[in-house]
This record gives sequence, C-alpha cells and structure tokens, in this order.
Amino acid sequence: MAENGDVVPAGWEPGKGSLVSISKQYTFDRYGVTRDFLDRVADLSEADGYHPNISFGTTYVNITIDARDGEAIGEADRAFALEVDRLAGEVTS
Amino acid sequence: MAENGDVVPAGWEPGKGSLVSISKQYTFDRYGVTRDFLDRVADLSEADGYHPNISFGTTYVNITIDARDGEAIGEADRAFALEVDRLAGEVTS
Repeated sequence: MAENGDVVPAGWEPGKGSLVSISKQYTFDRYGVTRDFLDRVADLSEADGYHPNISFGTTYVNITIDARDGEAIGEADRAFALEVDRLAGEVTS
Repeated sequence: MAENGDVVPAGWEPGKGSLVSISKQYTFDRYGVTRDFLDRVADLSEADGYHPNISFGTTYVNITIDARDGEAIGEADRAFALEVDRLAGEVTS
C-alpha cells in the first residue's frame, strides 16, 4: 500500500482517515488576486471536465478534490492538484 | 425584538441560533449555469464592496452573508441577499 507521501501532492491534506479526497487552502493578499485565481481554476475545470469543490471568501480559497474513481486519489487527481498549485503560483508572481 | 421573518429574506436561513449570518443554497442544472451565476455574484461583490463566503461544486452554490455590523443582518445585508436571488433568477430564466 502506498504511503500518503507517494500520492498526496506536497501541501495538500488527505481527507479524514482516507485518500478519497485531498484539500488545500490558498490565501491571497486581496480579492482581485482571489478572483483571478478562481477564474483560472474555473477555466482549468472546464478544460479538464472535472470540477472540484471550492469554498472562498475575500482572500482565501479552499479546494477539495474528490477521487475520480471514488476510492483513492489517483494520477489524474494529482495532476489536477499540481495544476491548481501552478495557477496559484501564476497569480501571485 | 424583530421576528426572523422581518429580517431574513424568504428562502434564506439564519445562522445557528443567531442573525449574525444568513445562508442559502442554489442548485443549477449544469456547470455552465453555475459559473454564470458565480461570475454575476462576483461582479455584484466588486460593485458592492462586499464579499460573501461562497462554496460551490458542479451544480450547487452555497452563499453565506455575514452581518456587516458583526451583530445582526441589516438592511444592506438583506439588499445584497435579494440581489443574489435576482441574479439566480436571471441565469435560470
């Protein structure tokens, strides 16, 4: 069985007691950056045909990615998470 | 003291045991409508300078409006809620 370190991208937290989801919180300095990030994640979602659960306020965004196979985070889920990380890097750079 | 009915717009739920926030869930048939709604709420937020807490997935959006005075939902909060209702009506009509 894989260790969490093998499947959960750095900075992401596995769901409680399982790998059926992973979550991460991003914080930004101001709403404009938050919205830019949300817009990019929405574009990614449309391109990828996968829609994570997202909660946000003025300067934070929580993203939860559910395992597409319903059982455990896999390669496509990890790739999506890393892409979200990349978008966060883009809007803050 | 005002009854909830006086201050909470129809269809909105007060926070647990208080009127310090109100919440409402909207559901849509497909992601395109969800995104349209989110974009309109974001535009409203920018115009109004107020940002509710929002959580969403493919076909649902939960919106929580915190009392701007930190104590109880007031006129500006109600107006914002009704405006959000109007936007939901726009995207589904």
